[in-house]
Amino acid sequence: MKNFFEAQSVAVIGVSSSPMNMGRAIVYNLLQFQFPGVIYLVGPKGGAFMGHKIFLSLLDIPDSIDIAAVLTPAHTIPDIFRQCGEKGIKRVVIESSGFSEFAEKRKALEEEVLAIADQYDMRFIGPNGIGLIDIESGIALPFMPFEYEYPRGKIAVLAQSGGVGASILNALAAENIGFSKFVSLGNKLNVNENDLTEYLQGDTSTGTIFLYLEGIANGRRLLELSSRSTKPIVVLKSNNTHQSSTIARSHSASLTTDGEVAKEAFKQAGIFYARDLRESLDYLKAFELPAMKGKRLSVISRSGGHAVLAADAAAFYGFDLVPFPRILLEIVEKQSRAKVIRLQNPLDLGDLFDLPLYLKIVDETLAQPDVDGVCFIHNYQGIFEAEASRELTRKIKPIMERHNKPIAFCLFTTNKELLLHKKSIELPIFNDPWEAIKALNAAMNFSQREIQPFIANPQSGIGMPRARVLIDEVSEKETGKQLPAALSYQLLAAYGIHEAPWRMVENADMIMASLEELGFPVVLKTADPQVLHKSDEGGVFLDLNNRIDVLEAFRQLQLRFGPEVLMQKQVTGGIEVFMGVKRDTTFGPVVMFGLGGIYVELFRDISRRVAPVSPRVAMEMIAETGAYQFLKGFRGHEEADIEACIDMLVRLSHMACDIPEIDSIDLNPVNLAMGHEKGAKVLDCRMIWV
Amino acid sequence: MKNFFEAQSVAVIGVSSSPMNMGRAIVYNLLQFQFPGVIYLVGPKGGAFMGHKIFLSLLDIPDSIDIAAVLTPAHTIPDIFRQCGEKGIKRVVIESSGFSEFAEKRKALEEEVLAIADQYDMRFIGPNGIGLIDIESGIALPFMPFEYEYPRGKIAVLAQSGGVGASILNALAAENIGFSKFVSLGNKLNVNENDLTEYLQGDTSTGTIFLYLEGIANGRRLLELSSRSTKPIVVLKSNNTHQSSTIARSHSASLTTDGEVAKEAFKQAGIFYARDLRESLDYLKAFELPAMKGKRLSVISRSGGHAVLAADAAAFYGFDLVPFPRILLEIVEKQSRAKVIRLQNPLDLGDLFDLPLYLKIVDETLAQPDVDGVCFIHNYQGIFEAEASRELTRKIKPIMERHNKPIAFCLFTTNKELLLHKKSIELPIFNDPWEAIKALNAAMNFSQREIQPFIANPQSGIGMPRARVLIDEVSEKETGKQLPAALSYQLLAAYGIHEAPWRMVENADMIMASLEELGFPVVLKTADPQVLHKSDEGGVFLDLNNRIDVLEAFRQLQLRFGPEVLMQKQVTGGIEVFMGVKRDTTFGPVVMFGLGGIYVELFRDISRRVAPVSPRVAMEMIAETGAYQFLKGFRGHEEADIEACIDMLVRLSHMACDIPEIDSIDLNPVNLAMGHEKGAKVLDCRMIWV
Repeated sequence: MKNFFEAQSVAVIGVSSSPMNMGRAIVYNLLQFQFPGVIYLVGPKGGAFMGHKIFLSLLDIPDSIDIAAVLTPAHTIPDIFRQCGEKGIKRVVIESSGFSEFAEKRKALEEEVLAIADQYDMRFIGPNGIGLIDIESGIALPFMPFEYEYPRGKIAVLAQSGGVGASILNALAAENIGFSKFVSLGNKLNVNENDLTEYLQGDTSTGTIFLYLEGIANGRRLLELSSRSTKPIVVLKSNNTHQSSTIARSHSASLTTDGEVAKEAFKQAGIFYARDLRESLDYLKAFELPAMKGKRLSVISRSGGHAVLAADAAAFYGFDLVPFPRILLEIVEKQSRAKVIRLQNPLDLGDLFDLPLYLKIVDETLAQPDVDGVCFIHNYQGIFEAEASRELTRKIKPIMERHNKPIAFCLFTTNKELLLHKKSIELPIFNDPWEAIKALNAAMNFSQREIQPFIANPQSGIGMPRARVLIDEVSEKETGKQLPAALSYQLLAAYGIHEAPWRMVENADMIMASLEELGFPVVLKTADPQVLHKSDEGGVFLDLNNRIDVLEAFRQLQLRFGPEVLMQKQVTGGIEVFMGVKRDTTFGPVVMFGLGGIYVELFRDISRRVAPVSPRVAMEMIAETGAYQFLKGFRGHEEADIEACIDMLVRLSHMACDIPEIDSIDLNPVNLAMGHEKGAKVLDCRMIWV
Repeated sequence: MKNFFEAQSVAVIGVSSSPMNMGRAIVYNLLQFQFPGVIYLVGPKGGAFMGHKIFLSLLDIPDSIDIAAVLTPAHTIPDIFRQCGEKGIKRVVIESSGFSEFAEKRKALEEEVLAIADQYDMRFIGPNGIGLIDIESGIALPFMPFEYEYPRGKIAVLAQSGGVGASILNALAAENIGFSKFVSLGNKLNVNENDLTEYLQGDTSTGTIFLYLEGIANGRRLLELSSRSTKPIVVLKSNNTHQSSTIARSHSASLTTDGEVAKEAFKQAGIFYARDLRESLDYLKAFELPAMKGKRLSVISRSGGHAVLAADAAAFYGFDLVPFPRILLEIVEKQSRAKVIRLQNPLDLGDLFDLPLYLKIVDETLAQPDVDGVCFIHNYQGIFEAEASRELTRKIKPIMERHNKPIAFCLFTTNKELLLHKKSIELPIFNDPWEAIKALNAAMNFSQREIQPFIANPQSGIGMPRARVLIDEVSEKETGKQLPAALSYQLLAAYGIHEAPWRMVENADMIMASLEELGFPVVLKTADPQVLHKSDEGGVFLDLNNRIDVLEAFRQLQLRFGPEVLMQKQVTGGIEVFMGVKRDTTFGPVVMFGLGGIYVELFRDISRRVAPVSPRVAMEMIAETGAYQFLKGFRGHEEADIEACIDMLVRLSHMACDIPEIDSIDLNPVNLAMGHEKGAKVLDCRMIWV
């Protein structure tokens, strides 16, 4: 990837001297961003632009070229690609549109372009993007003109929409926050977000990675990269709904993602999920601050009202408002009228009018070993104290850097003044105490996260090769159909997932023999794979306590559903939970947990994680749900076997990864033993072919 | 209240010629806001300021005075108040601090001030505020200088913090949105938010009311005013947590509110609850737009990426993205290169470069009868198209006004350009499609709301005077203690709330007689009011089916808990729900509903409303919970008697309002009959004295 950003010579293909020509903006941008290398222009009409000759063909250029930016009609791309190949150009940015986002039948054109790139060992970004900018190397290829008014910073912006990417750059610039690299991903035909994210992990200019995505190239790979990332990753993911799917397809040829699953998956991998532009900026501002090392926060405010808001926000995010030390009172008393402030946290500076003293208080507070960070709030109306306030703002960053603890600085004044302040420091200024404290929380969460590395292609081996043999023996794997009950139970057994003892029964003799082995009470149920909701359809007889009832149930089941009947030992006592797997189109198998029976559907109180899960993550899943209160022993009940529950979730998650032929698994209910009894037993299960 | 804003002459008390004197800022503000009346200054040191003589005493002023603004030490206020009274001044604004927010013992001073005001028939705002501004009349009394750079608008800002109030005014001004009146409420010793809200309802200059509150003067009165309001009311309520309580008390002498209850109560009365400053501004911007009359939205965007975000937001808020009519395609084809846009909603203008055509499309779209509003998104990088874009912005408001339908306008460009645009129109410009669509939703919700008028002091009369007699007969009403079981049931009965038949039983004879009347099965439970969790403590025997078991249960209950035992008919079948009442310190009795038994506590799936509730609101409460799925007949179960459930909730809510002696009521469980069976029966109840 590095060669995209460190090119020494650029060919801009698709330039003419017409005032309507958009390729010219690429040249403009290279000059604006002070690209130090050589620029060559190519266009079929020839002529010149900005003193550069426009070559008729790439092949006419006498020198070697590192990168080509192409903005010509889509159908011309294959030829241009071949010329690039011949010329030895290994990196191309296709900014043209008119590929599969325009019409499904253009897929063939994309295939052709990919084949040529492959043939010449070329990598390319796009098509249908606006190019890239490296603020350090001066490479700047967008076809819309960017004035050079962006500070250099540590945020890399990767966006599957040039417009949204530019909005982020502009909004950051308005806060005087800079960026390192910008890439408009377009249709991601060759280079995708994962390639670039991996590269940016090692890029010393980049400290925070922002992604705007309409579709996800390889969800599991993204989770793998993110879970190992030492740099915060913020993802604004759109195209999560039916309503956005059509426009997203024609905008960036992207397929819709299940927004709820994406949100959970991102959390799992330590990605900061943003719903909208504003939340994206909140996170990007947050990571400009050093992280708090603990939850001990001091709020220091000139305005009492803002202090009250900050205290509510601190409570919401679980910060501890530690008492101020006596030494502060001494400082204040020495330097001002005596005893005008109260040593409470938040600290109200309202009656002090000495702005340098504010800084002294902030400084001394950060120096305390039991303070991890400060939220400092200043306000003034913009007439009196204007110069003193600007001086105050300029001195905040050095104090913060000296202590290596964050100061989330909120400033309230007129907009005119606010703009001056923002231009004067390279530090975020917050406009709301809630925003400031949310930022402190995000930065701390990132630095303290305990993410277990996520593995995109795990090989658990637990149930293999036994499970593989079982699956391969099945000839009919029809999409959406249920697996035979016996096969389901055998697969579970291969993964060490225990079900209540069961037998397939075909006649009275087998019933009698099975009863001998299982003992009363038993359950009889149809094993016809076409019956998807056995209980609702009358396909389950519970609580059978004598042979006559069993035989009668057997007769009725055969009558209604056909010959396949399963007898199972009825388990009593314990608590019933639900476990399941659903294969997500973006993230692969997702494992689920909740309270069993109908409560899953009534309260939708289900936790989800992308599989596989470790025991720790399985425990998190359990603890997130209302079911956990139950399992821990609610209101004098005994505690359920949570260890067995964790173990089963982990095994189920591995099974889901190992067997791609299965689309979904429902274990409902699973019986967890309570008190002295131990173990977890599957009482019913349903698996569906992909 | 009107006399506060329409005063013709002002006395500013507490002015000196010292550069440290803050009273001088009041004079500065009156001049800045071009107060057309006469200003008199008063201060013990005399002298002059800005050409005005500073009178030594109020009584020295020869003319009559409409309003006094006072900024002198707290202890001087009583004397000044008496002078104001003598002078015939009926309106005073106390800006001094040092009252009960400073020390509890200053309550006496407050009482004195209130008594003097009462004696002279004076009303006053404050103390401990920064005064008020009426942008129309030019009254401007803050003691911090405000430059006159605020547009005149329709938003009234009432704030219990001058700092937060000023922040809102500044933030609105940055968006070129104006205000009508500003009042810093301070400690609200005399004039409170309800007085002003009521006045603003009739104020023709005000269209939207914003309140920043740290404490609520009279919650029920606020709900009453709001539920009848024809103007949107936005409340930013802080001081909702333990962490903020100390600072709020010393800032504005306010007591903490239960944030969750406040949120529900506000929703009930149609108040827009804002958690933070940003959300406050979102709502205030929203109400600057005309309201959509339905959910049919068109998104028109130059940037595909922003269009995808808008589509997700539209889905989130439940808008319908209606198809564009053919006529639009004709307009586009006539005026530009043919067939470059696709008629899908969102409409991507990406390939059109004719900005006046954008407006034509927006105009034609709003003209369609099946379109209720437009979200229009424009972006440009700020170099090319700058003038054309500014022209575009200026023309949006007239189009909107012609159709009387909203255009939520999002603009993305460099900050420099954005500021120019904002200054050029009196219409909110949104910075995020999510923000724009949230605004459309809020404005629509307000215009379409179906709020039933809330009554602060309802007199249901349902259970009176019977209930009153019962309550008055009790001599020991000890705080936190349980009411005797028999009394609880009798009170419920007075309100037509039916319990399962019951008898108090004292001996074997009574048991036998009661069994004759009730029939098996029965429940026996202790009626000792000191037992608060009967079931957990072994005080309930269920499912008693014969005399021997009943007598044994009776013996054990008397042994363990004493003589008071209650026998109740056991009800079988049906669904168990929970109903309750809790008296909130701010909003009075709050009624609750959820699924019965332990699920209430496991899932915290409870709906709440401030009592009393109408049948419609009771139905809303039921429908909000997971229990509703159950009651409607979940998975083949029969439907429960929802009508009976509604009826009981309504009666319970009236009972809670009528009997202030009761702090909380738990009816848990209430049995709702299913299928052909009808009715709702209380199976157990607990009431606690205030």
